[in-house]
Amino acid sequence: MWETFFMMIVQENDLRQLTKNIFLAMGCTDVDATQATDVLLKADMRGIDSHGVARLSGYLRLWEAGRINTSPQFSFETNTLTTANLNADASLGLVSGPKAMALAIEKAESTGLGFVTVHHSNHFGIAGYYSMLAASKGMIGIAMTNASPLVVPTFGNERMLGTNPIAVAFPANKYPAVVIDLATSAAANGKLEIAERLEKPIPKGWVQLKDGQATTDPKALKTGAMLLPLGSEREMGSHKGYALSAMVDIFSAVLSGANFGPWVPPFVSFLQPHPNPVGQGLGHFFGAMRIDAFRKEADYYHAIDTWIERFKATKPLNEAQPVIIPGEPEYASEIERAITGIPLSTPVVEDLKALIQKFNIQTNLF
Amino acid sequence: MWETFFMMIVQENDLRQLTKNIFLAMGCTDVDATQATDVLLKADMRGIDSHGVARLSGYLRLWEAGRINTSPQFSFETNTLTTANLNADASLGLVSGPKAMALAIEKAESTGLGFVTVHHSNHFGIAGYYSMLAASKGMIGIAMTNASPLVVPTFGNERMLGTNPIAVAFPANKYPAVVIDLATSAAANGKLEIAERLEKPIPKGWVQLKDGQATTDPKALKTGAMLLPLGSEREMGSHKGYALSAMVDIFSAVLSGANFGPWVPPFVSFLQPHPNPVGQGLGHFFGAMRIDAFRKEADYYHAIDTWIERFKATKPLNEAQPVIIPGEPEYASEIERAITGIPLSTPVVEDLKALIQKFNIQTNLF
Repeated sequence: MWETFFMMIVQENDLRQLTKNIFLAMGCTDVDATQATDVLLKADMRGIDSHGVARLSGYLRLWEAGRINTSPQFSFETNTLTTANLNADASLGLVSGPKAMALAIEKAESTGLGFVTVHHSNHFGIAGYYSMLAASKGMIGIAMTNASPLVVPTFGNERMLGTNPIAVAFPANKYPAVVIDLATSAAANGKLEIAERLEKPIPKGWVQLKDGQATTDPKALKTGAMLLPLGSEREMGSHKGYALSAMVDIFSAVLSGANFGPWVPPFVSFLQPHPNPVGQGLGHFFGAMRIDAFRKEADYYHAIDTWIERFKATKPLNEAQPVIIPGEPEYASEIERAITGIPLSTPVVEDLKALIQKFNIQTNLF
Repeated sequence: MWETFFMMIVQENDLRQLTKNIFLAMGCTDVDATQATDVLLKADMRGIDSHGVARLSGYLRLWEAGRINTSPQFSFETNTLTTANLNADASLGLVSGPKAMALAIEKAESTGLGFVTVHHSNHFGIAGYYSMLAASKGMIGIAMTNASPLVVPTFGNERMLGTNPIAVAFPANKYPAVVIDLATSAAANGKLEIAERLEKPIPKGWVQLKDGQATTDPKALKTGAMLLPLGSEREMGSHKGYALSAMVDIFSAVLSGANFGPWVPPFVSFLQPHPNPVGQGLGHFFGAMRIDAFRKEADYYHAIDTWIERFKATKPLNEAQPVIIPGEPEYASEIERAITGIPLSTPVVEDLKALIQKFNIQTNLF
């Protein structure tokens, strides 16, 4: 289906250089531009195309609207041996997120555990990136963020929660880390965009119209419809998806001092933030846990490798489609795209061209 | 629907005394019997009838089979300032769980965070109980456990995971704590039992037959069918329910040294544990986080109360059914049953009568 709207293939390093130059043009320091680029490129490499460079023009518009600060002065509300709460000073989440996760890892290195919340932040890209930072250091990594309200609680008729993702990465030895990274809604926005471009109906159970009816129209969200929580219907456990989304909202924002629920600032610049906010910006929650704080590392690695092997060997319904380990398709995409390059869709190419022109950036890409 | 199979109403204290006497008859110390009883009664009071005294005869049979040890010698695999890994010596999870959570709380009191895993344990009752222990001390509490394999991963045709619950409790000020406590399967076993007794079909999306077909037969699980993960179908995000269940399994068992996946010992005594276990017993995962490790308590409590008020005020689809705060119905049940008593179904009454006769227990209940 991808051929339908992928316009061209670019190489990772070319796209990385271009992306960094755009962040530099927005006033980021070299270190911050490199870091923010790394988060976005990880999404593009892992095949999570909705959260990579496709978002660049969105970040730009928020920066133009004065809602993203590319010269932030970070400060701490608290900073203990095991925990911290970072005020991100309206920075890119792509900059505050990695800083907070690095701090959680540093605390875990000395005490076994490190948990860091962030408030006054912005959209941080893919949650999986942060959990994988810890896994790459041999720790368990946890990342959550709240997001612009699009999701309706069970029994509700109002957008109250974001797609509020949960990411947890468990390092392994013989295999890539187990990387769990999921939106707590039935379907993420990106899937609606794909359906819209393909002019295909969406399954009932993703979106609820204002009257409570299900819809198969992928454009319904643009006219006030709501995403449904994971579980879709009350009978199928949508109250669980709602509760998980609530958990992410409370960890990320109530615990940090960010806006929560319907007060979370919209990602799009044409919608204004709430005039009476209950906090600052949006919020994130990060955790790092050292394995040997619980168990001998060798025993853990033997067990997680066994876990992966056994789950891959699950008796399948259809021999052609084996059971998947969480994070496996994204890892395969990273390997593949390192060789074949990253496919960009027509609107993303058009967006990038506009950014290149706007900032007069040199690139050999287009 | 309840009238159909609730036989009688008993008062909390009578049921508490009887339950304690049964645990004493199984060889528990007075302290352990009191503790185990408290966990079960909390389930009955909160309306989670499948996890209260209804399980007593199940625990008894596992004890008779030598798989539950009522004189455990607890030991630590690790015990640091912030973390521990407890070997529960085949104790009741109702005894090791509260001990481990108390330890997590104690560690959080001194360092801000405490996380404790448990291996070589047994079924621990409702996960919410443990998270609420922390909330009652003004901390955020987290509890997970793995469980007997009943759930099929997306694309699979084999029982690989338990209903693996996630519980998180956030203390509030003006209102009861927000208590999230959910099985990561589309429906928990208890719902199938209710449908079976009422002779009603279950919705498609709860259970998958061995050939991959959906079924509406509430008894299908007894003939080899599988529970589906939260999300039910691939298209509706069942891979997310599977990933969340996997997360619980890895935190609870791979990190602790318990059995995981299909190796988790069955709760029922007539099924034997796996002849080649990959760990000891089943496993739990507990966490406690001090609020002031992140934020001034007064600010947090103001924010969580605002969160609760705003979510309760969500515009509803139907004025007669407002949006529910996670934990709200269970709290209402606690209040109600403290006055009206606890309804017991016919099979539970019969089970209790058999236990009374077996151990020759004095009770004014029956």
